[in-house]
Amino acid sequence: MHLHPKPTNPISLFAIFVAILFSTTVHSDVDKASEWRQPAAENTVYLDTPEGRIVIELNPVFAPKTVTQFKRLVREKFYHGLHFYRVIDGFVAQGGDGSDLDRELTQPTLPAEFERSAAELNFVSAQANDLFAPETGFISGFPAARDAENNTAWLTHCPGVVAMARDNTPESGSTDFYIVIGQAPRYLDRNLTVFGRVINGMDIVQQINRGSSDANGIIENEHDQTPMVQAKIAADLPVEQRLAISVTNTNHSAFAELLNNRRHRSHEFFHHRPPAVLDVCQVPIAVKVD
Amino acid sequence: MHLHPKPTNPISLFAIFVAILFSTTVHSDVDKASEWRQPAAENTVYLDTPEGRIVIELNPVFAPKTVTQFKRLVREKFYHGLHFYRVIDGFVAQGGDGSDLDRELTQPTLPAEFERSAAELNFVSAQANDLFAPETGFISGFPAARDAENNTAWLTHCPGVVAMARDNTPESGSTDFYIVIGQAPRYLDRNLTVFGRVINGMDIVQQINRGSSDANGIIENEHDQTPMVQAKIAADLPVEQRLAISVTNTNHSAFAELLNNRRHRSHEFFHHRPPAVLDVCQVPIAVKVD
Repeated sequence: MHLHPKPTNPISLFAIFVAILFSTTVHSDVDKASEWRQPAAENTVYLDTPEGRIVIELNPVFAPKTVTQFKRLVREKFYHGLHFYRVIDGFVAQGGDGSDLDRELTQPTLPAEFERSAAELNFVSAQANDLFAPETGFISGFPAARDAENNTAWLTHCPGVVAMARDNTPESGSTDFYIVIGQAPRYLDRNLTVFGRVINGMDIVQQINRGSSDANGIIENEHDQTPMVQAKIAADLPVEQRLAISVTNTNHSAFAELLNNRRHRSHEFFHHRPPAVLDVCQVPIAVKVD
Repeated sequence: MHLHPKPTNPISLFAIFVAILFSTTVHSDVDKASEWRQPAAENTVYLDTPEGRIVIELNPVFAPKTVTQFKRLVREKFYHGLHFYRVIDGFVAQGGDGSDLDRELTQPTLPAEFERSAAELNFVSAQANDLFAPETGFISGFPAARDAENNTAWLTHCPGVVAMARDNTPESGSTDFYIVIGQAPRYLDRNLTVFGRVINGMDIVQQINRGSSDANGIIENEHDQTPMVQAKIAADLPVEQRLAISVTNTNHSAFAELLNNRRHRSHEFFHHRPPAVLDVCQVPIAVKVD
């Protein structure tokens, strides 16, 4: 509310209200520091385009082999100079195909890491009987779903998710990946290996050049494709060159309270009280870059 | 399939498959022309930014008074030179506040046009028991929902939706509007007047400069705000200057079949068969610009 420059404007309260919706709940009676967590530098990737830096947090808990290979590729500079060659607005930005620069046929294919045992995972529930899953929630900062009856959990295809593309065979992914840039394509859940999430720089991702829908997003001319200038693992950089990034600690009670506040919207703004439900892909996970 | 430049690449079939998902179904046994409709020039707005043209289709069936006022404002050049002054990545791009250029206090406020009678509307059903509504579907090209029991229907807050911002009072909107640019904020349904939808140029919308989340998306410095260079009603232009735009005719049987195909995904790509459900905001509505 202190930030709105036009306090007398008729929309100012709407703006303020949405500010409240998008703020994380901060309580004086809890350890504020623990409401945030710092992603491990070893699992943080800086992917640079000409428009800026995209920061990806990898998820070795759900996709150990994919993350291991992806990190090796990053360290070998495999992605340097490759392009986002297939970009469909509202769907995905895809790139990292080695044939782009004649680097194909040199990388092993990956196993399908589509789901795992839900046991021993700290699952913070957001919604039961979601349209696409028995239950949705968060697992260590990642939007997820689980089927408790069958003891399985998986990462959901929300905006910002990073997953490995593949052929029809589940085990055919290798280097080519995509970032979800539009309304969550949840029908892809458990069909592709989600191995990371953009934690900062989705505005940069949104600037990646689009292909035409007639061409299925394929951008024929390389000059029209947004390149990956470089990719680096944060841990490989001197500490002073790493970004000091904190993201919401979804295991903290403050986050559970934020979920509850978003589920039960009691502000006078709401002429029609929304149903007490949550779309797991529409819950913002705050990030701070110091 | 004819468009993919790398047929031997391991991801090519994935790309082809998604091409199929995103194609409208075309049948030789129906009138192909009628699978498309041409939005009325009188309800088509060209909103130009320095990055390109955004094409909005207005919806006077759901928001007659809001559309009437918006069109008058467009014709009076009210929006020329105004800015998107509040832009939250993944949420909304908001602009059109008259005080931006000292044009405030001159425009009447608008009634709440949040829902209407479902009677006499051609509602093409997509999903029963959606998380946020008893039923979702499409009404003449617009994603919508209805409550048949109470005979009401409303337009849903999907990406690309154009709606009037407001204060806490339902009847306080006037000129300031927003475009949804991220995961559908469906909790806003029936709380704000949706009066249009971006039918072409969402890639341009995605290039609108973002504000910082710390500042609730407010961009303090005007030089950092994306301006609205001009806005025009297509009908006011000579025919040869109008875009020849066609969008999917959601009332055609081919669209019902597309919904059905997306609901029941039988392609061998799907290692895990997705649940037979549809997110109304994730169904692409194809557009052609000749």
